[in-house]
Amino acid sequence: MTAERLSRQLDFIVELDKLKRILRQTLVMDGSRQENSAEHSWHLAVMAVLLNEHARESVDVQRVLKMLLIHDVVEIDAGDTFCYDAAASVGKEERERRAAERLFGLLPEEQAEEFRDLWEEFEAMGTAEAQFANALDRLQGLLQNYHNGGGTWRLHGITRDQVLNRMRPIQNASPELWGYVLQVIDEVYVNSDLIASTVDAEG
Amino acid sequence: MTAERLSRQLDFIVELDKLKRILRQTLVMDGSRQENSAEHSWHLAVMAVLLNEHARESVDVQRVLKMLLIHDVVEIDAGDTFCYDAAASVGKEERERRAAERLFGLLPEEQAEEFRDLWEEFEAMGTAEAQFANALDRLQGLLQNYHNGGGTWRLHGITRDQVLNRMRPIQNASPELWGYVLQVIDEVYVNSDLIASTVDAEG
Repeated sequence: MTAERLSRQLDFIVELDKLKRILRQTLVMDGSRQENSAEHSWHLAVMAVLLNEHARESVDVQRVLKMLLIHDVVEIDAGDTFCYDAAASVGKEERERRAAERLFGLLPEEQAEEFRDLWEEFEAMGTAEAQFANALDRLQGLLQNYHNGGGTWRLHGITRDQVLNRMRPIQNASPELWGYVLQVIDEVYVNSDLIASTVDAEG
Repeated sequence: MTAERLSRQLDFIVELDKLKRILRQTLVMDGSRQENSAEHSWHLAVMAVLLNEHARESVDVQRVLKMLLIHDVVEIDAGDTFCYDAAASVGKEERERRAAERLFGLLPEEQAEEFRDLWEEFEAMGTAEAQFANALDRLQGLLQNYHNGGGTWRLHGITRDQVLNRMRPIQNASPELWGYVLQVIDEVYVNSDLIASTVDAEG
């Protein structure tokens, strides 16, 4: 019984290794390569430990951590969908639902259920924990792009309004972090010519 | 005041990105490349969520998670030291102590202290949390090597006794996981010829 339980847990843990191969559109901060979803999840988890004091509503840090650690696991089957690509998002929900079914289904039943619930909670953004976790996910993308010279935004001609829209969940989850976000967006799009050419081309 | 505090936290978070460039000796499970310390830390954290029920002594999961998330951060300055390389380990402690000083010192004082304490606790292996966290660190290395065909062990001619010695902290932290570890080591070194040539060459 216990041997079978451990064996299911280890099968899942081995399967998790594949998240290290899932590449995001975002580049690491020195711009040298795409970031993968495993190291991205680690970065978010440390951010949650350090920044939870800035959440508007106090959060259960351990639940935020669990949520962030597994929020991208479905990408092992469903792939990473670029957040600014509307076409690629078609069918995303169904692809990810099937992925969650298979991947979390490797685990012993009650752990499978816990992980499915955490993932659904993250996606639904209905709780303070999910809102804060999502806010960190957006903030990290902004930090990467800010520090690697506008990386993804520049490359794909993403406009200021698109970035603002993408970052919007931060506003409610943490007014303090939102203030910082606005400052960065202004710096990138207004005060510098970092991606001004992109904006001109769009307009 | 708050702006300065947030600014210190974000400076540290940006600095953390460098852990994604620190390569371990261990290969990812498909053997295609070296694993980096950021994705490794993520993998360990998920393992802690799933496997803490196997700890001999019940552990504070949140503290284990925090410990695992930051246990390798000092490598940003000190580099990764291959666990089977005695020569490279000379001076490791001092290098890492200085790294902890500089890196955690970027944070607001009480967060710096918390992270330094967690890192020291992990290194000292004196508490149930640190023992379990270290056990997971060793177990993950074993899983990688088992699944990528003996990777590091084969490459560096690591003997069965060296592996057993390296895995030893698992024995006390989790008798259940230890049973699994012994089974894997037997399979790799005795029942298969996976790295038999290495053993022959050594003996």
